[in-house]
Amino acid sequence: MSRRDPGDERVGLAHGAGGRAMRDLISSVFLEGVTDPEALALDDGAAIPFGDRFLVLSADAHVVAPVFFPGGDIGRLAVSGVVNDLAMMGACDVLALTSSVIVEEGFPIESLRRIHASMSQACREASTRILTGDTKVMNRGEIDGVVLATSGLGVTDRVVRDAGLVAGDAILVTGTIGDHGLAVLGARNALGLEGELRSDVAPLNGLVRAALVAGGAAVHAMKDPTRGGVTSALTEMAGKAGLAILLDEAALPMSAPARAAAELLGIDPLAVANEGKALLGVDPAALGRVLEALRAHPLGRDAACIGRAVAPSSAFERGAVSLDTGFGTRRLFERDGAPLPRIC
Amino acid sequence: MSRRDPGDERVGLAHGAGGRAMRDLISSVFLEGVTDPEALALDDGAAIPFGDRFLVLSADAHVVAPVFFPGGDIGRLAVSGVVNDLAMMGACDVLALTSSVIVEEGFPIESLRRIHASMSQACREASTRILTGDTKVMNRGEIDGVVLATSGLGVTDRVVRDAGLVAGDAILVTGTIGDHGLAVLGARNALGLEGELRSDVAPLNGLVRAALVAGGAAVHAMKDPTRGGVTSALTEMAGKAGLAILLDEAALPMSAPARAAAELLGIDPLAVANEGKALLGVDPAALGRVLEALRAHPLGRDAACIGRAVAPSSAFERGAVSLDTGFGTRRLFERDGAPLPRIC
Repeated sequence: MSRRDPGDERVGLAHGAGGRAMRDLISSVFLEGVTDPEALALDDGAAIPFGDRFLVLSADAHVVAPVFFPGGDIGRLAVSGVVNDLAMMGACDVLALTSSVIVEEGFPIESLRRIHASMSQACREASTRILTGDTKVMNRGEIDGVVLATSGLGVTDRVVRDAGLVAGDAILVTGTIGDHGLAVLGARNALGLEGELRSDVAPLNGLVRAALVAGGAAVHAMKDPTRGGVTSALTEMAGKAGLAILLDEAALPMSAPARAAAELLGIDPLAVANEGKALLGVDPAALGRVLEALRAHPLGRDAACIGRAVAPSSAFERGAVSLDTGFGTRRLFERDGAPLPRIC
Repeated sequence: MSRRDPGDERVGLAHGAGGRAMRDLISSVFLEGVTDPEALALDDGAAIPFGDRFLVLSADAHVVAPVFFPGGDIGRLAVSGVVNDLAMMGACDVLALTSSVIVEEGFPIESLRRIHASMSQACREASTRILTGDTKVMNRGEIDGVVLATSGLGVTDRVVRDAGLVAGDAILVTGTIGDHGLAVLGARNALGLEGELRSDVAPLNGLVRAALVAGGAAVHAMKDPTRGGVTSALTEMAGKAGLAILLDEAALPMSAPARAAAELLGIDPLAVANEGKALLGVDPAALGRVLEALRAHPLGRDAACIGRAVAPSSAFERGAVSLDTGFGTRRLFERDGAPLPRIC
């Protein structure tokens, strides 16, 4: 068996899928020579001590196709993506966003207007604004439509880490799972579920603020289950904390249209992107009041406790996420083999 | 003559060229409904009062082709672009950068490594670091190679505006003009000038800091002449200040290879991108010490006073940039008709 020349390695779709292959690429290429602990943490964003507070930065690129999909569009996604990354670190005060637009020659200006209007609306919902940006045009055929790259600047007194899970923590999700990815795939495959199946894309800083006000330091860890879905996000949280996670399948909130689409498409709803949901690891003593605060918010009505963090054992390997189906327990694995390109 | 349906308008290459067409697109689309004066200022970045200082944000997308060119590559460009936008507003302390990579399936991972190494080197030169980012993969044929979108966060006690020119100000450039754009076009057209003609791409926050230490509040305005070149940057500065600018052709610093390439390609070196130069508007009383400080820095050895800001008059229209050729004076116009796509 001949070894492949490392100089011949190529980027594959799995490198963009949000799972292990992507983390491997980031570690082996983009973290080469990096020693800064904040960069090495690979959290949703990066926190910078400033005076007696923390500035938090986040960045996202969005390549979703189609650009307009049921429940949202690339503009709403680009704003929500960076706002949610900040919120996951506790930075619910979003000072400003930046927006870079890379667009194909020939793209309809009317579509840019719609995208801009949608970004403005999402900014209003997040109580923030886009303060600066850049516009680049590529020749026809050199880029498919439009790509948006946004960044966000937030501020917080306390940074919440995705690595902060503690054994015994309750795992909460703020609402139904799978809606975004299934809505985009449904639109792409013309499933005819439009109107019922809608992306959940939304800025979550208001919802997260409510949870943090209610739970304070009892909120140990947060992460939004975007690419790779709940399985990927929880695998990362469990791995970083050196714990395992056990989920209760019966507790997973799902909408009926999402359930139907997942079956039609043969897609695991735990492995597909959400763009308006958060996962929280919460001290069980605070579970009741955090759940109540989440459910009182319009974006958290379907919030649920879906499992718990457990110490690794012979039954639960360190970093493992398992699902109790009611008929037994099976381990969930990130699916690097079947990427869903351009889902966000 | 039938009027065109505004719904049929399409993005054209001129919309990405850094001149009037781009500013029109930004104003008519991306500033629709925007009331925030900081966003409406359309400066190189955006300043946010924070405590007794200012946080400054900048964002850039880079689509240059080829990705590797004489004197630099897209990685060095992506770091320098955002650092320089911060420096132009006086924020020479760059707290952190973000980096989003959008890459085509099949792109060589070895090229990503080279780009990352180049970004790391540019960060070291700028005394900053990349703290967070994102990676997206698009299908083969959906994006040509790689696009980088970076953002930067800086801090300053005093914000310098590109609108701050005062009548009588000396106009300084920190070195030779045209090198970046001509080097990229030279490489693209295989002019055979490689090795001689090199991009100037470099982070300028160290150089600008030296100028600000020397000149203090006498540095009234700064802007980096990227897309659209010196003509475009000065046209914007003059227009915002309600002044005119008169340049002395004999004083314009240019390298011999750039001069040769400009002639061969038939390109006006005043209209082509620089990626390691700044334009400064300086109170004439401080001209000597600012020029001395610039020339003492390795990136400012060829700094020169190239003209002055004048009050508008019958000879010099408000917002006009004119060139004294020694044989007469002619007005310089931004060239929206002949965009140079993917120069940065």
